[in-house]
Amino acid sequence: MELENKIIDRNFSVGIIGLGYVGLPLAILFQDSGFHVVGIDIDEEKIDSLKADRSYIAHIGDEIIAKLNTDGFIATTDFSHVQDLDAVIVCVPTPLNINREPDLSYINSTFDSVENYLQKNQIISIESTTYPGMTDELIAKKIENLGFEIGKDIFLVYSPEREDPGNEDYNTKTIPKVVGGISSACLKYGTILYSQAIDEVVQVSSTKVAEMTKLLENIQRSVNIGLMNEMKIIASEMDIDIHEVIRAASTKPFGFIPYHPGPGIGGHCIPIDPFYLSWKVKEYGLTTRFIDVAGEMNQYMPNWVVSIVSDALNERGKPIRNARILILGIAYKKNVDDMRESPATMIMQILKDKGALIEFSDPYFEEFPKLRNYDFNLKSIELTPESISDFDAVVLITDHDDFDYEMIIQNSKLVIDTRGIYQEERQNLIKA
Amino acid sequence: MELENKIIDRNFSVGIIGLGYVGLPLAILFQDSGFHVVGIDIDEEKIDSLKADRSYIAHIGDEIIAKLNTDGFIATTDFSHVQDLDAVIVCVPTPLNINREPDLSYINSTFDSVENYLQKNQIISIESTTYPGMTDELIAKKIENLGFEIGKDIFLVYSPEREDPGNEDYNTKTIPKVVGGISSACLKYGTILYSQAIDEVVQVSSTKVAEMTKLLENIQRSVNIGLMNEMKIIASEMDIDIHEVIRAASTKPFGFIPYHPGPGIGGHCIPIDPFYLSWKVKEYGLTTRFIDVAGEMNQYMPNWVVSIVSDALNERGKPIRNARILILGIAYKKNVDDMRESPATMIMQILKDKGALIEFSDPYFEEFPKLRNYDFNLKSIELTPESISDFDAVVLITDHDDFDYEMIIQNSKLVIDTRGIYQEERQNLIKA
Repeated sequence: MELENKIIDRNFSVGIIGLGYVGLPLAILFQDSGFHVVGIDIDEEKIDSLKADRSYIAHIGDEIIAKLNTDGFIATTDFSHVQDLDAVIVCVPTPLNINREPDLSYINSTFDSVENYLQKNQIISIESTTYPGMTDELIAKKIENLGFEIGKDIFLVYSPEREDPGNEDYNTKTIPKVVGGISSACLKYGTILYSQAIDEVVQVSSTKVAEMTKLLENIQRSVNIGLMNEMKIIASEMDIDIHEVIRAASTKPFGFIPYHPGPGIGGHCIPIDPFYLSWKVKEYGLTTRFIDVAGEMNQYMPNWVVSIVSDALNERGKPIRNARILILGIAYKKNVDDMRESPATMIMQILKDKGALIEFSDPYFEEFPKLRNYDFNLKSIELTPESISDFDAVVLITDHDDFDYEMIIQNSKLVIDTRGIYQEERQNLIKA
Repeated sequence: MELENKIIDRNFSVGIIGLGYVGLPLAILFQDSGFHVVGIDIDEEKIDSLKADRSYIAHIGDEIIAKLNTDGFIATTDFSHVQDLDAVIVCVPTPLNINREPDLSYINSTFDSVENYLQKNQIISIESTTYPGMTDELIAKKIENLGFEIGKDIFLVYSPEREDPGNEDYNTKTIPKVVGGISSACLKYGTILYSQAIDEVVQVSSTKVAEMTKLLENIQRSVNIGLMNEMKIIASEMDIDIHEVIRAASTKPFGFIPYHPGPGIGGHCIPIDPFYLSWKVKEYGLTTRFIDVAGEMNQYMPNWVVSIVSDALNERGKPIRNARILILGIAYKKNVDDMRESPATMIMQILKDKGALIEFSDPYFEEFPKLRNYDFNLKSIELTPESISDFDAVVLITDHDDFDYEMIIQNSKLVIDTRGIYQEERQNLIKA
């Protein structure tokens, strides 16, 4: 009851570890809900930016950061703040390593950094996507090894983030939050905490169920997009426009859900999360066939797009080598400034390796960002009838609403549309 | 214009070939819409039944058939009626043969039967599910070989049926109808015809697109159910209740669609339609990996259910041989009296082969129907506390709303629930 009262009375401080696409909106939400919030990140650039009232996420304005600071938000790289916190919410990345296995280094180093500062009566919540079992097999063990009893000294929950940048209908506050606890006391306090900031908290019976819930959501998405990508390749061979088929199927008022094929998949969830399950089930001697097929299909798509570009140029008597190719859109999805895992990079790299002269245009990027594995050193070109007509091929990768699609097709020698933007046949249009 | 006026003025007769789950509702709808309708079927039992005002489809009452007859409906096995018709709509089955290849024998024999009776200015529509290309590669050729010019003498369209028996929200009239024509004239007249009876007609650019639309709808369903079946097996090994996970994932207000795992799949669409595409794409040197994995997974489920039954009995020191096992529900889905491709039959057969003493109970069947490959010679038993407690195991296959689930679990030694009906843990409950 004491802990509950502290939460409800806002006599309670919340720490968010990891201030990226997940952690920063959550920090803002908790502070808006009347809590004292401390944001911790190992990235000094992020912390400096926040201290200077500057946002580094497109859909969060600088004025929101300024208000956060005015209201007493602390941004820091110093994990010793954890000793003064009542709750710690972990929002660090859980990517894949180069062999497509879970990379838990951020989770592990977070717990290495906080272990000297954990206190009795703290609530700890993990939001990072992970395999079913991580919270109780790995995190609970770490905490117990420090001498705490979970459910009595420290309350540990898993509550998967469901952020969807660019979604205009739902935000951190209105997306229901799934919470599973190691014990019923953990679940109780985790629920009370999140309920202060989020409209609806959904309790599940274990952390494992909560972990699996997040994976299932993104596995379904990956498999459905993979299926549509396979159907696109098949339809293309049969001279059928898959986008027309999807529109027609969508007129069925039950039982069909439109998912859209594309040039590959990107973002921080769909290309990554499913493999957390694939990895884990090997312990049980099982396989994840749908995930594996979807992964292969989605990873193959950039190569398929390049093959279509190559064929289209070849039909016009041109090789890829020295062809001038314009990439339209480099973000991983429309209307966002996020390039994580974007298929555009892979398509650009393959084309470049084959000798193409690549440029790009994306209203969300002035220049091509430096990425871990790619460095194109390019500036976004301005789209005009003149600039477009110079290219041998224009490859539409990301269907931002800002593009003037009619102007583009009217002035291009050749457009390869990987998104089904152009519904009618055009002489200079290839659907890929 | 003349043809259009004839349709609009109802100076126009419509023939429906194949009076099953698709054809009979369509015949009723066209007659209700003011057309003179002739129903043709090779099954004399169906025709005799209709003539005697008796329905053979659960959700169509006898009084509807009586009204149909009063209004002048003709039911016949005589294909020569086709010579007097203005439109012919083909709703015959397109099953798979024993090697899982398209069985077009009903389509082919239909066209053999009508070829002497086709007339100029007739509209012909195919509603049977099929592979992309059948209408123009096979049917159009047959008609042209009779000396007709498609689009001038005869108007040929493909318009896939979307019947969903048991659906309380949508019926034949309110489910939008996709139509593709061999030519624009075909599409025009096909659209006018269907528009008289159906609220919304969706035009697509070719018969191939219309054919692919129907397949895509059911491929998506098959793949999503297959995915959930794989996830169920995985979750089961990890001691996670997949139904709880699906309920939790369903609280995400975007991007997740609940599909439900089960004991296998049944009905006349999902287990069959996808393989029409698998078969066709071989011509193009392609494969359909998602369809194949889904097919294998869904076909495997009855075996998996049996393995769970076997393990559960074994835990209780019993072999399957001579165990008394009650199957609850033999229909392929809840609240219907339809057994086509029902997984219950396969589960019963496997259990029987292993020596179990099988009985069944299903409020929609007084006795086990004679099927092509199965003959159990059983009557549905009445469910009472006494009758249930006699069985070593009760296997819930079809989750009809009529079952008294609380009474069942309270009186059973052991319940194996393949549908996730029981959310709470029970001592005598195994989720499969």
